[in-house]
Amino acid sequence: MKYADDSLVLHTDFYELNMMYTYWQQGIAERNAVFEVYFRTLPFGSGFAVFAGLEHVVKYLQDLKFTDDDIAYLRETTPYPEAFLTYLKDMAFTCTVRSAVEGDLVFNNEPIMQVEGPLAQAQLVETAILNMLNYQTLVATKAARIRAVVGDDPLMEFGTRRAQETEAAIWGTRAAYIGGFNSTSNVRAGKLFGIPISGTHAHALVQAYRDDYQAFKAYAEVNHDVTFLVDTYDTLRSGVPAAIKVAREMGDRIDFQAVRIDSGDMAYISKRVRQQLDEAGFTDTKIVASNDLDENTIQSLKMQGAKIDVWGVGTKVITAYDHPALGAVYKLVSIEDETGAMVDTIKLSSNAEKVSTPSKKQVWRITRHSNGKSEGDYIARAEEEVAGLDELYMFHPSYPYINKTVRDFDARPVLRLIFDQGEQVYQLPNLSDIREFCLRSVDSLWDEYTRVLNPQEYPVDLSQTLWDNKMDLIKHVKTKVAKQQL
Amino acid sequence: MKYADDSLVLHTDFYELNMMYTYWQQGIAERNAVFEVYFRTLPFGSGFAVFAGLEHVVKYLQDLKFTDDDIAYLRETTPYPEAFLTYLKDMAFTCTVRSAVEGDLVFNNEPIMQVEGPLAQAQLVETAILNMLNYQTLVATKAARIRAVVGDDPLMEFGTRRAQETEAAIWGTRAAYIGGFNSTSNVRAGKLFGIPISGTHAHALVQAYRDDYQAFKAYAEVNHDVTFLVDTYDTLRSGVPAAIKVAREMGDRIDFQAVRIDSGDMAYISKRVRQQLDEAGFTDTKIVASNDLDENTIQSLKMQGAKIDVWGVGTKVITAYDHPALGAVYKLVSIEDETGAMVDTIKLSSNAEKVSTPSKKQVWRITRHSNGKSEGDYIARAEEEVAGLDELYMFHPSYPYINKTVRDFDARPVLRLIFDQGEQVYQLPNLSDIREFCLRSVDSLWDEYTRVLNPQEYPVDLSQTLWDNKMDLIKHVKTKVAKQQL
Repeated sequence: MKYADDSLVLHTDFYELNMMYTYWQQGIAERNAVFEVYFRTLPFGSGFAVFAGLEHVVKYLQDLKFTDDDIAYLRETTPYPEAFLTYLKDMAFTCTVRSAVEGDLVFNNEPIMQVEGPLAQAQLVETAILNMLNYQTLVATKAARIRAVVGDDPLMEFGTRRAQETEAAIWGTRAAYIGGFNSTSNVRAGKLFGIPISGTHAHALVQAYRDDYQAFKAYAEVNHDVTFLVDTYDTLRSGVPAAIKVAREMGDRIDFQAVRIDSGDMAYISKRVRQQLDEAGFTDTKIVASNDLDENTIQSLKMQGAKIDVWGVGTKVITAYDHPALGAVYKLVSIEDETGAMVDTIKLSSNAEKVSTPSKKQVWRITRHSNGKSEGDYIARAEEEVAGLDELYMFHPSYPYINKTVRDFDARPVLRLIFDQGEQVYQLPNLSDIREFCLRSVDSLWDEYTRVLNPQEYPVDLSQTLWDNKMDLIKHVKTKVAKQQL
Repeated sequence: MKYADDSLVLHTDFYELNMMYTYWQQGIAERNAVFEVYFRTLPFGSGFAVFAGLEHVVKYLQDLKFTDDDIAYLRETTPYPEAFLTYLKDMAFTCTVRSAVEGDLVFNNEPIMQVEGPLAQAQLVETAILNMLNYQTLVATKAARIRAVVGDDPLMEFGTRRAQETEAAIWGTRAAYIGGFNSTSNVRAGKLFGIPISGTHAHALVQAYRDDYQAFKAYAEVNHDVTFLVDTYDTLRSGVPAAIKVAREMGDRIDFQAVRIDSGDMAYISKRVRQQLDEAGFTDTKIVASNDLDENTIQSLKMQGAKIDVWGVGTKVITAYDHPALGAVYKLVSIEDETGAMVDTIKLSSNAEKVSTPSKKQVWRITRHSNGKSEGDYIARAEEEVAGLDELYMFHPSYPYINKTVRDFDARPVLRLIFDQGEQVYQLPNLSDIREFCLRSVDSLWDEYTRVLNPQEYPVDLSQTLWDNKMDLIKHVKTKVAKQQL
């Protein structure tokens, strides 16, 4: 490589740089601007999403500095004048960032992160932020759905081989852990994030000995805690009998924790394997299943009475297989005008749900005191007072006749201050606390919102002020467009 | 982070280490073993796949060395004895690696990479190799399918924001370039790989000026080559008229290259936009379209006569949206026994197509001299002579009555020597050569194999020797299982 891979500053779309250049040439690069991240549709038909990706975003923003190689590359490939390159080289990140925190629940059409600061800087970071948040939120959500159907069963993530390149493997397994998984197979993710690692052996071990019994015996002679993979040749006629034979021979020298099945009809085979293990007296030995599982197949296996105690999930969680992109966007909602005043901005679209909601906002999670359950989210302009109100009128932004008045509630701001004018003021929590917070957050939802299939729609409402403002701006833009028609 | 992210050696599944430990304790870690990578199903219903990922694998293997932090982490979290940690620390990569080269076509059920060497080392690298090859081959294949439907139209990749974390964005866009894209929006990918970068401005620029005309004017004043994004407020009534107005005012000071549409009914709108541009005299100005496009939507737009000249593709290519995991596996096909002889190994399965093909192999691409078109792939044992034969009997491995005898052919080995006992002997080609090779390779296939919907099945045949050997081993294992039934 001609240039060192020494920064993520250029991990951005080229149009961001072209816009920065235009802002800089036109003298508006330092104007204050507010961008917000939100997604329009919950993935997987889910009733909620789990926010993740903040830690990577924080590290990215901490290191946001054009390196010499970045500048040299731009000098070679773009027509930017030297003065602009110097401007980039000298740029220090001074934006204010507010964000949902990892493990918290987030919903469609509400801001989940907000970047406020000089227009050029806030523009630059769009791509990388979306790249990180889109993927990690997607996987944490998928993981929480799987957790919702397995109850307290152990859940192991082992999708690295099918992950979309190396960073997806480690940040994805971290997101899965946040969403409720118990362990990862990826040792690097264990090293970097402290996630418990799990795994015993693969088919290759059995093939290396060309015999189930010989392989299990060899493995048991040098490892105390053993799980045998029993489906290399024939699960019921060779794998399980060989595992039982080795376990009997080794006696107390090993802990015969489990057998793993990775193919075949899981419902049928797991019942037969359970029977074989029980009849041999190994009633405490667990059955681990893996093979393209996700919340749908696991739910089906549970309904069929499959005798599975531990679930290994790979491909389906690490790629978010049935909905592999979240689609969060980063939209300008407010900008300083030539007089120094902040004015709200909107993006129209022929698709009604693609019209953005203008204004710098805060999201309030409304929880009823009496039962601790969430009533919905209430989005207001940032300066609106919500926490101290006695009652709150909540209405559906598209169907205002769906409405309710809430009393005796707690209002918690979802967006927290992460960077204050470039200075990190939020201390990243440790991962197990994030995971605990996520599990508690999911518990705070009624089951109607967390069920896997056809959940109820969780209320995400706009304050009256915000709603009126949005309608006014739509009208304003449409009138203007009509007038200037050529 | 407690440990530095200073190596990819632990970017592996924990069970690989546990197997290495078992091999080491049992004294078989240094036995010669042959593993092969293959996938069972072509993605997207495609008739072919484009191999990619080798460059990342080569870099990974070049750097394969346990760091002090890797060892410290293992010491803390695993029960491995110090002698084993020392063994790992001293390990140097000495395997021989053969592989398809990037840009070449590959098919289901044939080896696309082969790792031969000490059992423990060859086991270690399974996970990372699959992680890289699975994803990059998937994206290169998706890209080649999209290239197949656009003909010579320019294709821009801009999916970074939807990519599954940062490495997918850059290796994915590189794979898309190999498969036939012309440019990327990701500036870092431009910096690292020399891919041409493209992009002009986003909706944010228009919102910052709260007016199409003002924004386009500002942009045109400081950039010579301009593409205006015209759908922020109203494409036909505001966006395009404003673009034309600015272009007229600026005259020769800009090159009004294109307008971009990112929403709405592309077929209808593009025709109206073409009309507006033509009537204004801008007949050379192109129309760029983007909005969740892939080979299927593009084909449909072309059939509807949409007036689109340039295609921007993001989410669908960078996540391989409709088939986001390839499913390549890494199987032991041959291993040294206690006498020093190499013996072939097999993995059975109740799913017939999951039975592996034993033996160290070579894949021969059979091309007819008369027309330069591929007749099929012929998989033989590594030591079989194929290139010099006068005629070749090719038969379908599942349906042997489908067969043919080929004469006057060229046989090219698909697997090339990359590392010879740990030493890299293959010089990585430059990216544009890889891309050219890919385009030529796709051309060498009959259209029946490259069409997007329901392609013909490309022949991937086994030599008689290989087929007989597989049948013998299946019989041998089944007999053995039957005998030992407990």
